[in-house]
Amino acid sequence: MSSKILIIGGVAAGPKVASKVMRLDPTAEVTVLEKGKFLSYAGCGLPYYVSGKVKEQKDLMSTPVGVVRDAAFFQKVKNVKVLNETEALEIDRARKRVRARTHGKGEDFLLDYDKLVLATGAKPVVPPIPGIKLGNIFTLHGVHDAEGIKALLAQSKARDVVMIGGGLIGVETTEALVESGCRVTLVEMLPQVLRILDWELARLVEKHMESHGVKVLTNAQVTAFEGDATVREVITTRGRLPADMVVLAIGVRPNVDLARAAELAIGLTGAIQVDDTQRTSDPDIYAVGDCVQTTDLITGKPCFVPLGSTANKQGRVAAINICGGTDRFPGVLGSTVCKVFDYCVARTGLTETAARQLGFEPVTVLVPDMDRAHYMPGSSLIITKLVVDSRTRKLLGAQIVGPGVGDKRVDVAAMAITAEMTVDQLSKADLCYAPPYATAVDAVLTAANVARNKLDGELIGITAMEVQQRIEAKDDFVLLDVRSPAEHDAERLPGSTFIPLGALRARVGELPKDKEIVAFCKVSLRGYEAAKILQASGFTRVRVMDGGLIAWPYDKITK
Amino acid sequence: MSSKILIIGGVAAGPKVASKVMRLDPTAEVTVLEKGKFLSYAGCGLPYYVSGKVKEQKDLMSTPVGVVRDAAFFQKVKNVKVLNETEALEIDRARKRVRARTHGKGEDFLLDYDKLVLATGAKPVVPPIPGIKLGNIFTLHGVHDAEGIKALLAQSKARDVVMIGGGLIGVETTEALVESGCRVTLVEMLPQVLRILDWELARLVEKHMESHGVKVLTNAQVTAFEGDATVREVITTRGRLPADMVVLAIGVRPNVDLARAAELAIGLTGAIQVDDTQRTSDPDIYAVGDCVQTTDLITGKPCFVPLGSTANKQGRVAAINICGGTDRFPGVLGSTVCKVFDYCVARTGLTETAARQLGFEPVTVLVPDMDRAHYMPGSSLIITKLVVDSRTRKLLGAQIVGPGVGDKRVDVAAMAITAEMTVDQLSKADLCYAPPYATAVDAVLTAANVARNKLDGELIGITAMEVQQRIEAKDDFVLLDVRSPAEHDAERLPGSTFIPLGALRARVGELPKDKEIVAFCKVSLRGYEAAKILQASGFTRVRVMDGGLIAWPYDKITK
Repeated sequence: MSSKILIIGGVAAGPKVASKVMRLDPTAEVTVLEKGKFLSYAGCGLPYYVSGKVKEQKDLMSTPVGVVRDAAFFQKVKNVKVLNETEALEIDRARKRVRARTHGKGEDFLLDYDKLVLATGAKPVVPPIPGIKLGNIFTLHGVHDAEGIKALLAQSKARDVVMIGGGLIGVETTEALVESGCRVTLVEMLPQVLRILDWELARLVEKHMESHGVKVLTNAQVTAFEGDATVREVITTRGRLPADMVVLAIGVRPNVDLARAAELAIGLTGAIQVDDTQRTSDPDIYAVGDCVQTTDLITGKPCFVPLGSTANKQGRVAAINICGGTDRFPGVLGSTVCKVFDYCVARTGLTETAARQLGFEPVTVLVPDMDRAHYMPGSSLIITKLVVDSRTRKLLGAQIVGPGVGDKRVDVAAMAITAEMTVDQLSKADLCYAPPYATAVDAVLTAANVARNKLDGELIGITAMEVQQRIEAKDDFVLLDVRSPAEHDAERLPGSTFIPLGALRARVGELPKDKEIVAFCKVSLRGYEAAKILQASGFTRVRVMDGGLIAWPYDKITK
Repeated sequence: MSSKILIIGGVAAGPKVASKVMRLDPTAEVTVLEKGKFLSYAGCGLPYYVSGKVKEQKDLMSTPVGVVRDAAFFQKVKNVKVLNETEALEIDRARKRVRARTHGKGEDFLLDYDKLVLATGAKPVVPPIPGIKLGNIFTLHGVHDAEGIKALLAQSKARDVVMIGGGLIGVETTEALVESGCRVTLVEMLPQVLRILDWELARLVEKHMESHGVKVLTNAQVTAFEGDATVREVITTRGRLPADMVVLAIGVRPNVDLARAAELAIGLTGAIQVDDTQRTSDPDIYAVGDCVQTTDLITGKPCFVPLGSTANKQGRVAAINICGGTDRFPGVLGSTVCKVFDYCVARTGLTETAARQLGFEPVTVLVPDMDRAHYMPGSSLIITKLVVDSRTRKLLGAQIVGPGVGDKRVDVAAMAITAEMTVDQLSKADLCYAPPYATAVDAVLTAANVARNKLDGELIGITAMEVQQRIEAKDDFVLLDVRSPAEHDAERLPGSTFIPLGALRARVGELPKDKEIVAFCKVSLRGYEAAKILQASGFTRVRVMDGGLIAWPYDKITK
């Protein structure tokens, strides 16, 4: 007797379970119910469909060789029965069956299962703000949303757009809208965009967005939408914003209605609770993808990090366990990347903020470097922040921002965290080197070495934020710029003292020994060497500014 | 009393030791002796200087902010005394001093040391082939060589070039010469270029070079050079080749003359033997970079893998130990990358060949995949081979070839090998995902999953080489192509049977149950699904061709 596998959800994790089950057990009877019209489409690709980089809707739902993954495809190629536009209404756990209804087809029907898989995904948060029902206010969650936005863009009816929410979808969609010719204002409730980053790196991303014409309003809350049939203005705590279109991207919530109604355990995060085999509190029901909670590999605590990469892995794990095998999904590090215009923005593990909240005593470094040999054409900047546990010297997190190749270096950091490596071990990693691809000491390894210098007391750092506070407080300290005259002419920090590194040994007498000295350069390697020269000359209070001028998140003086 | 640190070699590892020593101990007296004229230059960048991608000689020896690292720079900025064009002639270990001579300055002189560092590098192998002394036969080891080659190119006197050796420098320089307008024949003694790869991937690289007009002659040995003052012809076991210029790139040997004369221990590899603190058999003498042997992290055996990345790490380790700290260099995985025209070619750990030689019983997979979401513009192919220990399921090696981003994925594999991860663990790694950067299941994780399928007996593979042998031997088996009609029309394998995957269930009766069936498609995911369908229909001898048609290293039938 073949077993009946019923899967609710046909977008990402659901089809993955279906395909893998059929490969493991070709005798299984697999049925997928999908509420919407479209199957197995690339939700993460929607911003690129809006921008036109992805040309056609069907590109998002085709296999790499161009076959559209529709119900006929699943039947013919996978031997999986897919009912789209069909909503699961209720789970009867006692009788092991699901009541469902196909849109526009009247009668409900019942489907039996031996194993049920919930892949019900997440839904965008839509806050109850006055005017939220006005026209031209979109979320960007499904193909339908993208088509609505694209239709407005095609009619050139969306000159002024307000993007609400500076998370991943918000910043990716902002880029798409700017590329479509919109004037975009991004409204973010928090003091920064992209909570995957610490503030100083998020600020660099905001500056980059601003350089592309985006108006970034942080610490701003939307209080109302105004307009007639369609939205005309967005009222925020930081002013009124004209708006032909609004895109809401303030986050998603796991879709747990069915699970909750069936009295399956819901986790602390509000997502469905599963064990590491993806099984829910009912041994015959599994759950995967954006509707489940998973485990943070560093803290061991439950977390809700809905991502397509995780959904796929969980789908495979669930399928193996459903078919009688054993596989476990250990959890996530929160590894994330997004493209923000010309910047690659990536993160894994804990931010400094998160690490401190969790009670770690982190040492952090902020290291600007080139992504390949600096003399090679195309060599681009990346700014790496590492968060390291000062007690164990283990890497806790990495963030990289900049035009260069950052994502794969964050992947290297993710591997180091997974393996619980110290920065000492990471610094010795044998990574590939050739001038078109990396520097001889790769940027991540250099950052690990800087962390080692800090942990060993060789380098005493100070963050840009502390320096700025001291400048604002008119503290009496020397902010020592050791760059070259040409660099200093081009841009500099207010109130800084300028002695190029090469002249420092000769001119060390010009500096006061009784004051603290904060040395910096472009990236702070020369700043570090300056500190060493000063220490050797008897200066005892010398610090080096993390990240140098290139990672300075505030204003600079330019010519 | 400050300590005297004497460093022999001023190109890569030597200056690294000098700089780090000065940062750790600003009171040290550090002197660097360099035989050549140029200091601290990027030897790995020479092919790109030949091609003109790197515009000026000084770019190779400047800091990222454009300051040339000459003797004055080292003195002023680093407080390091550098004597270039100065050769160390002899080490007097008993008296702890080195006899040296500056070119063109008559008298030898003596330099005392407390600690001596050998960073004498490697030298290109120049075989004693008749005619080797003819003009226009170059190696590409130093700036001087590059200038010689560039001068000939500038005079348009190097139309036909024979490149001898298909290693890293050989293929990189071949690209440079083709870009400079030369007709290049690459002569390689072995059956393949790039021994960092297994044969079938090296063959794909050769095909790629051939598509750029390079004539690749493998299994060919040079027996003589002929010409008058300058070379005119290269005589090989596979014919006579016209040559206006010859570049010899058959490898390097560690420069151990000084060490050997001083009776320091030389390792089995012919390079200087050091412990993991980089100390030689003399406790006051360290050695770093291309002149030392290191440890293969997988086998624990000594190896000689001269690379700039390793040299830098060793330099740091030596400096820390010299200054009284403790640091250890654990060894290498042989991680390597090179650019071959539009292909990124990268490797870490053991090839299949090496693994078999070492007594492992490896399972291998060959998985073509896209480097980012296939619907994104710029999405490019990468072909990943993993070598996995079938007993422990641990990853032993990874090779990636193709136009897409392969190097950083090999870095991820390198981290997995360093952490002794199984492919099961690797397959769960939380890597960054967004459509512009990766697929939802990253190519390396997909390859890990394919390896798991093989290890678990879900997938039985057959290599292209075995298939080709069986075709040649006229074995009676079914080579089943399950691609689409359009794909089949464009190119196909000789003697294959064609049934598209979507039609296979209906047409399964057309296939003979008594013969072995080898299923394949473009990449072999559909081939795998075909195998599963056939198995479910009672076929017992079904295999899937590793890598599919896209990694097929032999000829195909095209329209």
